[in-house]
Formats: sequence, structure tokens, C-alpha cells
Amino acid sequence: MSAAAQIRRVDPTVEVVVFEKTNYASYASCGMPYYIAGDIASHEDLLVLSKQEIAERGIDVRYGHCVEEIQPGARRVVGQTRDGQTFGETYNYLVLATGGTAIRPPWWAEWEGLFTLRSLEDGIALRVFIEVERPRRAVVIGAGFVGLEMVESLARLGMEVTLVGRSSHLLGDFDRAFAAPVYDAMHHCGVELNLAQSVQRLVGHGGRVTHVETDGGRWEADMVLVATGLEPSAGLARAAGLEMGVSGAIAVDDRMRTSRTGIWAAGDCVEVRHVVSGHNVHMPLALTANRTGRIAGDQVGSASVGRTSAQRFRGTAGTLIIQVLDYAMAQTGMSLSEAKRAGFDAASFERESRSRASYYPGSKTLKTRIVVERRTRRLLGAQMVGEEGVVGRIDALATALFARMTVDEVHNLDLAYAPPFGPVYDAIIDVCGKAALEL
Amino acid sequence: MSAAAQIRRVDPTVEVVVFEKTNYASYASCGMPYYIAGDIASHEDLLVLSKQEIAERGIDVRYGHCVEEIQPGARRVVGQTRDGQTFGETYNYLVLATGGTAIRPPWWAEWEGLFTLRSLEDGIALRVFIEVERPRRAVVIGAGFVGLEMVESLARLGMEVTLVGRSSHLLGDFDRAFAAPVYDAMHHCGVELNLAQSVQRLVGHGGRVTHVETDGGRWEADMVLVATGLEPSAGLARAAGLEMGVSGAIAVDDRMRTSRTGIWAAGDCVEVRHVVSGHNVHMPLALTANRTGRIAGDQVGSASVGRTSAQRFRGTAGTLIIQVLDYAMAQTGMSLSEAKRAGFDAASFERESRSRASYYPGSKTLKTRIVVERRTRRLLGAQMVGEEGVVGRIDALATALFARMTVDEVHNLDLAYAPPFGPVYDAIIDVCGKAALEL
Repeated sequence: MSAAAQIRRVDPTVEVVVFEKTNYASYASCGMPYYIAGDIASHEDLLVLSKQEIAERGIDVRYGHCVEEIQPGARRVVGQTRDGQTFGETYNYLVLATGGTAIRPPWWAEWEGLFTLRSLEDGIALRVFIEVERPRRAVVIGAGFVGLEMVESLARLGMEVTLVGRSSHLLGDFDRAFAAPVYDAMHHCGVELNLAQSVQRLVGHGGRVTHVETDGGRWEADMVLVATGLEPSAGLARAAGLEMGVSGAIAVDDRMRTSRTGIWAAGDCVEVRHVVSGHNVHMPLALTANRTGRIAGDQVGSASVGRTSAQRFRGTAGTLIIQVLDYAMAQTGMSLSEAKRAGFDAASFERESRSRASYYPGSKTLKTRIVVERRTRRLLGAQMVGEEGVVGRIDALATALFARMTVDEVHNLDLAYAPPFGPVYDAIIDVCGKAALEL
Repeated sequence: MSAAAQIRRVDPTVEVVVFEKTNYASYASCGMPYYIAGDIASHEDLLVLSKQEIAERGIDVRYGHCVEEIQPGARRVVGQTRDGQTFGETYNYLVLATGGTAIRPPWWAEWEGLFTLRSLEDGIALRVFIEVERPRRAVVIGAGFVGLEMVESLARLGMEVTLVGRSSHLLGDFDRAFAAPVYDAMHHCGVELNLAQSVQRLVGHGGRVTHVETDGGRWEADMVLVATGLEPSAGLARAAGLEMGVSGAIAVDDRMRTSRTGIWAAGDCVEVRHVVSGHNVHMPLALTANRTGRIAGDQVGSASVGRTSAQRFRGTAGTLIIQVLDYAMAQTGMSLSEAKRAGFDAASFERESRSRASYYPGSKTLKTRIVVERRTRRLLGAQMVGEEGVVGRIDALATALFARMTVDEVHNLDLAYAPPFGPVYDAIIDVCGKAALEL
């Protein structure tokens, strides 16, 4: 929808048709955990644009239309509607925004009480199940951001929640020592953490899931959420002969052009350049999805009016923040292990700071870890955990990554200070000072 | 004290003597408004290091010692103690950290109930006065950050507060349209704002201030705080023949060396390079004061052990944040008027955003204004106002200033997003996108 809207902004005369498999377009999928927790009353609150607003923008969305084949030679797509009717449509310009699909591991089974969370329809189904069935015990499989947000939502709904994660850390890189307050808060909430465990199988009874078995134990469950990641929905593109990237997502350039003239791709189905490593990665995050959509739309709209679009994708840093109970966890750039895997001679430095001056009431712990390339002293990544003051600070570090700053440069930044907001030497300055000294 | 402590860190054998006019060294002066408001119980909570901790660091502080003359030729300082005894001390290395002095305008009078707020002794006197005299009406003169923080503190103590400011805006550049929520919050708190007014005289009775008269009216006052700014305490240095800067503060290079070999200067008494304009400015803010002190100390300690210090001052952006009632106001770099005065062909762009996704409960308004050089599209400065999410975001913009980023580059940053922390297109990205489009 970002692409569609931008096409119409640039060329208000062009006909824009969107084929959408589900019954919803333009919704805030990141809001689903809060909708499921009941913080947000209705799924309609998650709609960014209503059907009428979409129509007013001159975008013709065909709901329940699943495209099954692209015929690039004929510049045509064909598919089937929900009620089984076939359709076909020709195009001058095609934008693939097929997104991603929640991964269904081999042990997946078609049972009641078993969910993934990807589409708004998934979210609605989950909320309805909770309201109707009143599950008491939930197992969440996957300790990535969807899993963690859902652990919080389900715990706040009063369920006994068990989290099973394959990695030994939350969110991939937030180990127990670094993110201790989050682990503790989950424990205090009655969340049972089972990390470094692999699911062996699900057990069901009467068509309904009843247990999760891992290599570490067996847990009873009235409902199970599988949040083991997202894979790019690139099948249509692959079948049409478009070039795929190293990650298995669709390969595009910085203008979102695929290998085939006349076809662009954007969103969770493409891979993009990582600003730190320079490698192409599949990084299905909201901002990148929206932004690549807008860029694709700008390219197409511009082409349609005979202009050249100046918009380019400038790289992802994988910047991420999530709220888990009272804590924000955030990251940007590479973790130490990612940096090493990418071939950097890297070291990490940690520092505990405060969200307010030590003497100022209500000061909270703010932990920062940075990853640095030894030789160049360049910042490669950062993680933060804290009850307040995390969001903008991770943005400052992301900005430093884009500027390819060294820890010395970050240490010398002039950042904001007042007692209600931190110590004189801010968490960021402090941790980079430590690195500058010890490197 | 930053300099003294760093000297001892680098050379633990050197004798460090500090002459301090007052009875306190190493205190958090930025905490005084919160101490006066009673948020912080005792002035001792503001001491960064106790007298014993200072002694344990091998620093010999001579309290109540006012240096009156520097004799650079003899490498000697002379002065007088509080009880009238003269003293003299020779040195190998001298660091001037004489700080700044609260400006006393021409209409100043030596009356009870009339205060400035600079030293900890000023803060203690103010709190004692409030506790003993229970003033009901206060007039604060000056709408800079000290004045605004004190308006909040006095209002929270239940006083009727009148703020008189010479500028027509709060904090110099926060006009009523941009910072409307702050103006409104002050109004709802019963604070009377009298901006764009000049004080003509103070009226007193029986040795006590009773009224403030401006060119716009006359206000009754049981106490008056004069917060009209800080001037560098550079008299000693000037008398010793040291070179002064354009601002009237002591001229130093990026190693804090003055024009005289063997004498360094740091803190609120020096001028430093502005990272955006490249001009030297007097910017008496806590981080720069601490940092220049540490650099001076590192230079001196290194000289003492026969090494060369690599520490340099990398520039100020004048980054500032203050809390006023429920709002944070922050700025970095130049305001539009400052940029124009500095010779930039600049434009400003404003955008209202949200501190959380629009559908997420508790979302607050977050206003951002940026100043941009038209020709280069380079970011020159920014201001923000909001109830949450301001602190780190202004840091991200400060980081962009240090990296000399264009609005296009900032617009393309990968910043953190999750519904509890903002919209997908963060406030910063959004306002830079607006500028990129309209420039």
C-alpha cells in the first residue's frame, strides 16, 4: 500500500490495482500484540486507511484475490479469488509486495489452538480464540520480537505463559547477564523461560493442541503460538524467473528494481543492503518495508509520468526496539557474533548507566553494549536495555552507524543533558569512552 | 574538579592543589532546581564527591581560598582566604577553572529576597529563604534554562510565579506556536508569563525586595530570582595577560591551552568551537564544562609524566534539554535566527508527530523543528518539544550535526520503531522528509 499510495501521489492519473489475498489492506501489523492484549479495542483501530480512504486515493484494491502466476513476457498476472473464480490482469508496471510468511516448522500440525501471527486475520483469529476459549496456559515458541511481545500480551491477559526459544538468549543477542532485568521481570510475571531448547513435536487431542514437547521437557498448553520467524514470500517471483538474493528473498537494487524490466519489488519479500556489513540481508522490519514500498512507488510513478525518481534505499541497520513488560530492549547494527561472522575483528563493551542523574528521583538502570571493529575503532552495532530513555538513544547510535563513526567520535558528541534525563556523561558517551580507553 | 581528578588519574604522583572560593567543590549544580523544589532532600545529595573522597583521590582542595592574581612569570598564584589571610602558591602547571558568574543587571540591588542561582551556596540560601520566609509570590527574571527550571520548582512549591523574559520566546527560540503545550501548561499552573519585557527597576522596602517593574507592568514579589545568564569569570586570566576570545571568555585551543605556556583553562570560563558554524562561542553547559576539564587534566597529567595526550575537544552543538512541568524542551545546533546571523542561507521546517503509534494508548504529541542550509541541504540545528521521547531523539539529531548530514541522509536513517515508541516513520525521519521534499 505504501507503493500504491506513492504511485498515485506522483501520478494521480495512473490506474493502480492492488491484488490482496486477505480481506484487509493497509493495517498496522505491529499493533497486533496490543490488540490481542486488549489495549486496543478493535482491529479496525489498526487500519491505517479504511477501505473508503483507500478508494478516495484512487487505489483499486481487489480483496480476496490471490495472484498465482506472473507472466512477465505478457506483462500479465493471473490468479484465483477466494470463491474460486480465476482472474487475469495486464500491467505496464508491476510491484511485488508479497511480504513474508510465518515459518511453519516441520512439526506444525493443523490443530485448533495452534497459531502463527502474521496477517490481521491471524490476529483476529487469536483474539477471538482467547475471548471464546479462555485458554489458561499458553506456550510461545520463538524468542524473537513477535514471541516476546506476545509473551507480554498473554501474560498481561492473566495466562500462565511458557516461552520456548532455540537460542539461549532473548532476541538473539540479549543474554541473561546483559538483559537481567528483563529476564527477572518475566520471571516475576510467572513466565517460564525455556531457552536453548528445540521443539520435538506438538501433542494434540481431539483436534486440539494439548502439549509442546522439546528436547528439555513437555509443557501443557491450551494454546500455542509459533513465532519462529518470517520467510520471504518469494515463490511467485521465483517461478517467474526473477533473480533471488543470497537470503532467499527477491534481489533488488537500491531503486527496488528486480532483475526483470518493468517489475519492482518491496517490503518483506526483498533483501536489502546492510549499512554496516554492506551485505544483502533479509530484514523484515516495518520501517524498511514501508520505505522500500514508497521508493518502488516513487520509481513507478515517476516512470509513468516520464521523470526519473531520485529516491534510493540507503541501507538497513536492523534497528529494532521492543517493549517487554516494563523494559525496552533495542538494537542497531550488528551483534558481536554477527560482526564476527561477517568477518570483522570485533570486540564488545558494556556499561551500566542511569536514565536520570543519580540523585534525581526515579532514576533507572540503562544498560548499553556496543560492538566495535578493533582496527578502525568503528562502531558496528549496539544493544540497550532499560525502563526509560532507550528509544532515542538507540537512534543516536543508529545515526552514528550510518555516519560510520568511530567510538572516539561518538564519545565526543555533544548530547543532551539535564538531571531528569541522565548523567552529564550520557550512557552512549560513557560506553564509547570505555571502548576508546580499552581498545 | 574534572581536571584535578584526571590529572591524578594520569599521574598519581603529582601534587594537585585546588583553590576554591566557596566551601564546596565537586557538586552537581544542575540539580539545584530540584533540591530547591524539595525533590532532593539535602544539598549533600548533590555532592559528586565528598570531601573525604576528594582527599582519597589525592586532591588537596583549599576551601574558602580566593585566588586574586596569577603571576605567570613567577608561575605563582596569590590570593586571600575568607578570613582575610593572604596566601601564595607556585605551580608547574596551572588550570583555570574559574567558571562563570550569574549576570547582575544594572538594576541589581543588595536586598533580601533577591537571588541569583549559580553556586551551591546560592542554592542553599534560596532553599533556606523559602523554608524560613515562606514566600507566596515569586518573580523569575529570565526565560533561559535556569529561569524555566526554577519557574517549575517554585510553582511546584505552591508559589504564584511570574516569569519575566526579555525575549519574546522561551529558551530563546521556543515561540508560542511551536511550544504551545509548554506555554499552556505554565498557564494552567498559574504561572504568569510576561515575555518581551525589560525590567526597569526593582522596588524594595525595609531592605527587602517587594516589586519588579518592567516596561510592561509592575509585579509584587516576596522573592525575585534573577536568571539573566552567565558571564565567563575571566577577570583573573585577563589581568594576567591571557588572550581572550570573541565572546569575552578565555581563548583556548582544542587541548585547552591558553595563550600562555603552562596555563590551561576549562569549563564555563572558556570559549569553544561550535561544530556547525565553526565559530568560537561561550556555551556554558555541563557536559562541555566537564569534558573540557577532563581534557585539560589529561593534557596536564600527560605533560607531567612526559607523554602527549591524544584528547581533543571536538566541538559543541549547544545541545540542551530541560524539563518544564510535564514537557521536555530540547535543542541542538543552531536556531533559524542564529543560523541566519552566522551567514547561512537557512530555512526551517516543522512537523508534529507522536511519541507512540496513533492507535497505541497514551500517545503524546512530539513537535520537531529543523533548521537546514538551503544550498547544501545540510542539517544545521533542531528543536523538539514533547511529553516523552524527546531526550534520545535530540541526541540522534545532534549526532547527525556532528556527521554533517543532509536532511536526505537523516530522512533515510534506519531508526527504531515499535508501537509503544512512535510511528513507523519517526518524528525525525518525518520532519527531514518534509524538508527534503520542500527544499
